Amino acid sequence: MRWHAPQKASGSYSCSSNSHNMTTKQDLEAIENQISTIQVSSHGETVNPGLAHGGLKAVEKGRNWGWLLSGFISLNILLLGIPIVCGSVFNKIQITSSHLLIFLILLVILTTVWLVYYKIHTSRVYRAVLYKDSHAGPVWLRGGLVLFGVCSVIMDIFKIIYYVGRIHCESPVKIAFPVVQALFVIVQTYVLWVHAKDCVQIQQIVTRCGLMLTLSTNLIVWMTAVTEESLHQTVAPANPSYNSSSSGGYKIDVTSQDRAGASDCKCSHDMCDVFEKAYYYLYPFNIEYSLFASAMAYVMWKNVGRQMDEHHSHNLHFSLWDVLVGPVFGLIILVAGLATFVVYEVDVAKEDPKKKEEALIMHYIMNIVAILLMSITTLIGCIIFRMDKREQVSGKNPTRSLDVGLLVGASLGQFLICYFTIVAVLASGVKGHVNGLNLTNSILTVIQLCLQNAFLIKGLHREPFRETETTTVFANVVAVRERDPERRSSSIVPAHTLPIPLTLLQGQLSWQRRILKEICGFLLFCNVILWIMPAFGARPQFDNSVGSDIFEFETWAAVVNIGMPFGIFYRMHSVASLFEVGLAS
Amino acid sequence: MRWHAPQKASGSYSCSSNSHNMTTKQDLEAIENQISTIQVSSHGETVNPGLAHGGLKAVEKGRNWGWLLSGFISLNILLLGIPIVCGSVFNKIQITSSHLLIFLILLVILTTVWLVYYKIHTSRVYRAVLYKDSHAGPVWLRGGLVLFGVCSVIMDIFKIIYYVGRIHCESPVKIAFPVVQALFVIVQTYVLWVHAKDCVQIQQIVTRCGLMLTLSTNLIVWMTAVTEESLHQTVAPANPSYNSSSSGGYKIDVTSQDRAGASDCKCSHDMCDVFEKAYYYLYPFNIEYSLFASAMAYVMWKNVGRQMDEHHSHNLHFSLWDVLVGPVFGLIILVAGLATFVVYEVDVAKEDPKKKEEALIMHYIMNIVAILLMSITTLIGCIIFRMDKREQVSGKNPTRSLDVGLLVGASLGQFLICYFTIVAVLASGVKGHVNGLNLTNSILTVIQLCLQNAFLIKGLHREPFRETETTTVFANVVAVRERDPERRSSSIVPAHTLPIPLTLLQGQLSWQRRILKEICGFLLFCNVILWIMPAFGARPQFDNSVGSDIFEFETWAAVVNIGMPFGIFYRMHSVASLFEVGLAS
Repeated sequence: MRWHAPQKASGSYSCSSNSHNMTTKQDLEAIENQISTIQVSSHGETVNPGLAHGGLKAVEKGRNWGWLLSGFISLNILLLGIPIVCGSVFNKIQITSSHLLIFLILLVILTTVWLVYYKIHTSRVYRAVLYKDSHAGPVWLRGGLVLFGVCSVIMDIFKIIYYVGRIHCESPVKIAFPVVQALFVIVQTYVLWVHAKDCVQIQQIVTRCGLMLTLSTNLIVWMTAVTEESLHQTVAPANPSYNSSSSGGYKIDVTSQDRAGASDCKCSHDMCDVFEKAYYYLYPFNIEYSLFASAMAYVMWKNVGRQMDEHHSHNLHFSLWDVLVGPVFGLIILVAGLATFVVYEVDVAKEDPKKKEEALIMHYIMNIVAILLMSITTLIGCIIFRMDKREQVSGKNPTRSLDVGLLVGASLGQFLICYFTIVAVLASGVKGHVNGLNLTNSILTVIQLCLQNAFLIKGLHREPFRETETTTVFANVVAVRERDPERRSSSIVPAHTLPIPLTLLQGQLSWQRRILKEICGFLLFCNVILWIMPAFGARPQFDNSVGSDIFEFETWAAVVNIGMPFGIFYRMHSVASLFEVGLAS
Repeated sequence: MRWHAPQKASGSYSCSSNSHNMTTKQDLEAIENQISTIQVSSHGETVNPGLAHGGLKAVEKGRNWGWLLSGFISLNILLLGIPIVCGSVFNKIQITSSHLLIFLILLVILTTVWLVYYKIHTSRVYRAVLYKDSHAGPVWLRGGLVLFGVCSVIMDIFKIIYYVGRIHCESPVKIAFPVVQALFVIVQTYVLWVHAKDCVQIQQIVTRCGLMLTLSTNLIVWMTAVTEESLHQTVAPANPSYNSSSSGGYKIDVTSQDRAGASDCKCSHDMCDVFEKAYYYLYPFNIEYSLFASAMAYVMWKNVGRQMDEHHSHNLHFSLWDVLVGPVFGLIILVAGLATFVVYEVDVAKEDPKKKEEALIMHYIMNIVAILLMSITTLIGCIIFRMDKREQVSGKNPTRSLDVGLLVGASLGQFLICYFTIVAVLASGVKGHVNGLNLTNSILTVIQLCLQNAFLIKGLHREPFRETETTTVFANVVAVRERDPERRSSSIVPAHTLPIPLTLLQGQLSWQRRILKEICGFLLFCNVILWIMPAFGARPQFDNSVGSDIFEFETWAAVVNIGMPFGIFYRMHSVASLFEVGLAS
């Protein structure tokens, strides 16, 4: 079985890629830049063709102001959204969830209108999209978008059915929002699928603003979903058997008040409970959908007005049979994790303190084993990278920068939870098995996060392996020189700094590559199970009272509820990055 | 009166600066890069001089791993610090402020040891510092560092005296920390003053880690100071006359409990109260000191291993008499602001609801007038930038990137408070004068922040004006060509896109420059007063109950206490940036 996956992000920037032709590319870009400026100006843009020598600057100036304007629009929408979301949580009288939904409906409709306008008008104008960024919107991202998009639409349908049953006592806005959202998801998925790689050249200011609007809308939808999901997960331990700290009453008040309001309202059909449960299980997918869409909108925004040479979309052949041991061990961990997760959820729901403690111990042991194995393999991977002689990729690439930024940024959530746990357990005096395991688990997770981040950052910045490497390296040098004879002396890395001929390393490389692929396969499955557990409701942080005992319950809930969505996204994103690193190894 | 200020950040990157010689510089850098690699390798570094062609890569690899390692060290210290700071606020039993102080003392001592090691050993090694970054550590930053450092040391002395009077009932750690901190401030200020511009070439991994340790220590000290200061400011309204919302009791509990503990302990000398008040007034300076030191450590970290040409430290002549109207109006606003601020503080302290309302109205009107004038002048400045034909600065410059990042990042704090206020006032139905003024003030502040950010970003990215510009522009082109005849055709911006000869614009430029300088002068003083008011304790957000009525008191306190320090820093930083933009205009 052989896969043909497009090469991306960590990938090369040109067929004849080697860091030597970077400066050449800049020059080519500069020339193309000017040509296109003159061309664009002759198509009725603001630039006066007679003043072509000022054209480049005018375009650049427009680009900068558009950049600022769209940034401020996005900033303001997001910062307006935060207090409305907060208000709808903490203040049920003056700021209700209906207000929030109306705000969301307005945003979603506005974004949908822009997306339709972009599809129908902007993208069809002659020479609107001169270039495509081959790194943007790789297949796994677009595939994920469609998958999560389908789940989101199903979630919206369930929500509609649920709220139709309660139409006599709930605001009609609660039905309107899922309807509008489903439409938005369909339109957005289609537009992003088709246009993710576009480098738009016309109407740059409008396009930038539109993309930033799309980004903000998705982030606000994400924020709302995360808040709802977190409140839902935080309600769970608020049952009588939960031995919370004295201050734990506050959050329960809010939610029980909410519940009380809900229980007054009888559903007109029997299926309400089923649909409510079902749509909560689909929340994690909707959350990921919003993030995927945001990431793609951001990359498109970065690519507005970008100029590049087009001919570097070539495929990497990836044979699944190359790797076996890693994925098999990974699958074992995955299955074991799923089994313990199901047992854990069942035992925790039983409200028996003894059962609960056993469930926690089992959960922590499972996690410790998985994370320990992951740390060891990741460390081996880092050592191989350190020994390896392969070139670093240089050059601008918004997709890769975003990947790395999101990875490190998202891992902060999990780091934060771990450090809060470590401090809490240490402050409580580490009594009992559960606390000891909790501490071990948190410390190991911190180590694993550091190692995995280093591994992925290094992996994403490496030159991908090419099967014909030994023959092309020198051919490239010749090609570069022929293409641009004058610049021979000025390329950034002179020819004599080239690595020692790769044939000498070929034997060594193949076992290194094999091990790297195995490691990526193993880590991939491990990250999947570490994603599934919190995404589908495992909250040992609340089932274990140490955190809420040491910190106020509210502080603890805030840390967990803010950190957890990022942690979940981190695991999800790691899976994608590992897939990519594995392909390029 | 004429000032000689060194030109920086937004400044040029070379004497003969014009964007044309960028690529040339890259080449020069590449060559120097190699030369220094070979030189460094002959001084006993890991690189084998015999394998000079692999040297560059090895150095780069070391740089990358050092980069990752130091990043992770900093991340982990910061993330460990957050729960300890949180714990010492919310949990007074298992995590006391003594624990936090012990953690801080360890960090501060470790950092001091590294700073001494760097000064005594690293910086003295032959060829350790081959290059200096002329943009790093400009005079205003180093001057500010010394000024705030002196204030910090005075604060520490006051603290020592205060805690010596209470030694019989407080932990000795409370005296130890200010002693260690004073020493640290003195050592750090000296080292940063002397070495801020260094581009360290040896022991890169150790140096990077040391600089990141310095950065983290300063940020944790900052975080602690901000938390203490916020708690201090939040206590103020917790007096009986404060008509807080029902949930306001919680925070007051925490602080009154703290107070109760404090009042049990009698001071052994009479001056305790005086010194306590005095050191709280010095907190804002200590907070700024930590941020200044962090910024300088970060720029040094970015400059580790950087190679550049040295000869571009030249002075800009700045005549104070060029500008008059702007600074005079700015001073009027400053004096008026100071007067209303004093009246406000006195009236609010009187605990008479009517007086308080009058004080709030006066405060808001003062703010609205200042911010309205600022918005209008900033808008004029933006329009002039838009009309202006001056080149954008390109090229790498960590100082400038940091400036812009900090500016936008810090403004988020104030944005957040404004949007929370807007939503709260709208949700409350905008009743009464105070609410109306509060709403107007918040909306205007949002607009002003957007405009000022745009103005400063644009201003920092402009080519600075040079008095001999008309003669040098063409001389530069010639110089560039002569220096590098082969590259004529490949410079990024070909010669024919040069601006129209500047003599034609000279008349126009001079009034534009004059207006820009006036605007910067005016905005500078306005930002000073907007810094002074919150930094020295004006908290209309708590004196006005609308925020804590609509949101929970805790949410509101969290938003204000997190957003305010950033807002204060933003105003401070704007002053510095405006000074720079004014100089370069």
